[in-house]
Amino acid sequence: MNYPNKIKKEYHKTVNYANRGMDLESIINDTNEYYLNNDIALIYKKPTPIGVVKVGYENNLQVITKAYFASPSTLDYNGLYKGKYIEFDAKNTESKTSFPLSNIHPHQIKHIINVIKHGGIAFLIIRMNGLFYLLNGPDLISFITNETRKSIPYSYIKEYGYELEYNYNKGLDYIKYIDVIGGFKNEEK
Amino acid sequence: MNYPNKIKKEYHKTVNYANRGMDLESIINDTNEYYLNNDIALIYKKPTPIGVVKVGYENNLQVITKAYFASPSTLDYNGLYKGKYIEFDAKNTESKTSFPLSNIHPHQIKHIINVIKHGGIAFLIIRMNGLFYLLNGPDLISFITNETRKSIPYSYIKEYGYELEYNYNKGLDYIKYIDVIGGFKNEEK
Repeated sequence: MNYPNKIKKEYHKTVNYANRGMDLESIINDTNEYYLNNDIALIYKKPTPIGVVKVGYENNLQVITKAYFASPSTLDYNGLYKGKYIEFDAKNTESKTSFPLSNIHPHQIKHIINVIKHGGIAFLIIRMNGLFYLLNGPDLISFITNETRKSIPYSYIKEYGYELEYNYNKGLDYIKYIDVIGGFKNEEK
Repeated sequence: MNYPNKIKKEYHKTVNYANRGMDLESIINDTNEYYLNNDIALIYKKPTPIGVVKVGYENNLQVITKAYFASPSTLDYNGLYKGKYIEFDAKNTESKTSFPLSNIHPHQIKHIINVIKHGGIAFLIIRMNGLFYLLNGPDLISFITNETRKSIPYSYIKEYGYELEYNYNKGLDYIKYIDVIGGFKNEEK
């Protein structure tokens, strides 16, 4: 998206809520830019949903003077790769032993189920213990359906997830695993 | 998305810029809800991109006190249908004779070309002369590439576009034309 001059920069400096997951978000944004510039895939971060209450004017420019953050009911990133619909979310967890499911809104779980049902590819990128994992939607939903635990043990993520390598040029190259989970290639994990 | 209590309603009442295209937007949102509820397709409107500058607190709730609207570089709606990536924008024009290309940002044109290149389906829904048309991305790009005119004549939209019927229950049922333009069926226009 194209912000008016310098606003994007100012935003990153002043809004503390964004810092929580900013490193992982920056890494994924850089990866998506690499994919875009190299014609590999088109993946974008959706704008943060905001409910605007009041709008005024300042130097002939519309300025929002009151608005609230809203909870997303879908995942943060979506786009396409080889014609296929891709949607995912990136999550950090400080826990070394398990990934708390409270990190995912119930609306988002329902949405992941829907994306899979309609033939799309949905997954999470989880940063945990200093490593990055891609946990495919069906493996996430299978855990939630079959287990009563409110967090996914690290052992499950290591067993079912794909560990992603970070590379300075390519970023976090997750798209090669889409070839595997999306059924484009005949590879087994 | 889930707004805090009543904010969405208040937003629609107070923000005039939204009224310009609200009727067509409401019709398309209703159509997408019909598709969602009937398991036909998953199509969402992306949140309006906003650059947040200042955030404060009010009754323990984060409130944005300064932000700007940003220009979108992609299209307003995206999602999936039968596993395929779909992206489109909805545009009204008051002109009876031609659709001004100034309605589409240059970034959006580039994005439409990219979506098509990566195997996705991109199009416009245009309301003109009281009728609704789906103009497929390749037909839009073909016009822009081959013509020097800064607006698309109504005759071109009638010839290359698909007229969409409005139905009280289904809304503006555009998805059946995706079967045609997306190559799922062997139908000719």
